[in-house]
Amino acid sequence: MDETQARAWLGTALAEARAGLAEGGIPVGAALYAADGTLLGRGRNRRVQDGDPSLHAETAAFRAAGRQRSYRGTTMVTTLSPCWYCSGLVRQFGIGRVVVGEAVTFRGGHEWLAEHGTETVVLDDPECVELMRGFVRDQPELWREDIGE
Amino acid sequence: MDETQARAWLGTALAEARAGLAEGGIPVGAALYAADGTLLGRGRNRRVQDGDPSLHAETAAFRAAGRQRSYRGTTMVTTLSPCWYCSGLVRQFGIGRVVVGEAVTFRGGHEWLAEHGTETVVLDDPECVELMRGFVRDQPELWREDIGE
Repeated sequence: MDETQARAWLGTALAEARAGLAEGGIPVGAALYAADGTLLGRGRNRRVQDGDPSLHAETAAFRAAGRQRSYRGTTMVTTLSPCWYCSGLVRQFGIGRVVVGEAVTFRGGHEWLAEHGTETVVLDDPECVELMRGFVRDQPELWREDIGE
Repeated sequence: MDETQARAWLGTALAEARAGLAEGGIPVGAALYAADGTLLGRGRNRRVQDGDPSLHAETAAFRAAGRQRSYRGTTMVTTLSPCWYCSGLVRQFGIGRVVVGEAVTFRGGHEWLAEHGTETVVLDDPECVELMRGFVRDQPELWREDIGE
């Protein structure tokens, strides 16, 4: 896909991540876009805010998009490489593409998704890296809880 | 694990599945148990009831259990073989064991979980099979929507 487009969409996910950090939450954000560029849903990790461990950024964006008959042609944009839970979401629902802000601070399932036919774009965005580095440094216990370690 | 125990726990998941069917929903139920047999959370698919595609039975049970520091030693009991989304949940959070009511009407990721170290018990429960068979026959479109097909 066009990198300018990918970076513009990443901006939506980044805004969610920043809002999460400001709320005292885990700074991961995501957005689900339709093939025509319509924003279907956006969200952020809500473990701290709602006490809800099931809402990772990607599942929050997926939830916000409501019921959809098909995810073919949609793109999940996330600030961080998706964990197994969120990678499983992408694979099960046939979300066509994943745009990953960074896969440096956490190496999730994006390669597994690529092997199974998901178009995968990794952007190595410095702001995404910076957000996570600071968070993991400041709240290592909370981060480990969020990824089940 | 002891099969009598597994079947008793499956009863909780089955009660959730039946309640879901009675509400006009997708009849899959799940429960998360602690190592000492404490019920941590239970839930059912809520796509129809809440218009929420992110709540499969397993994610609903996981959510109901709230924040947990570790899932080591826990068991996820589900009436149906977990899809990739729910299998990813189990793998990411290190849920130690999965009890599957049946894997006949839908073959999810339970073998993948077993390969990656999750203890997996498949019960081939006739009531679980019957519930899903009837549902898939009566509402094939809704079922396909729920598994992204």
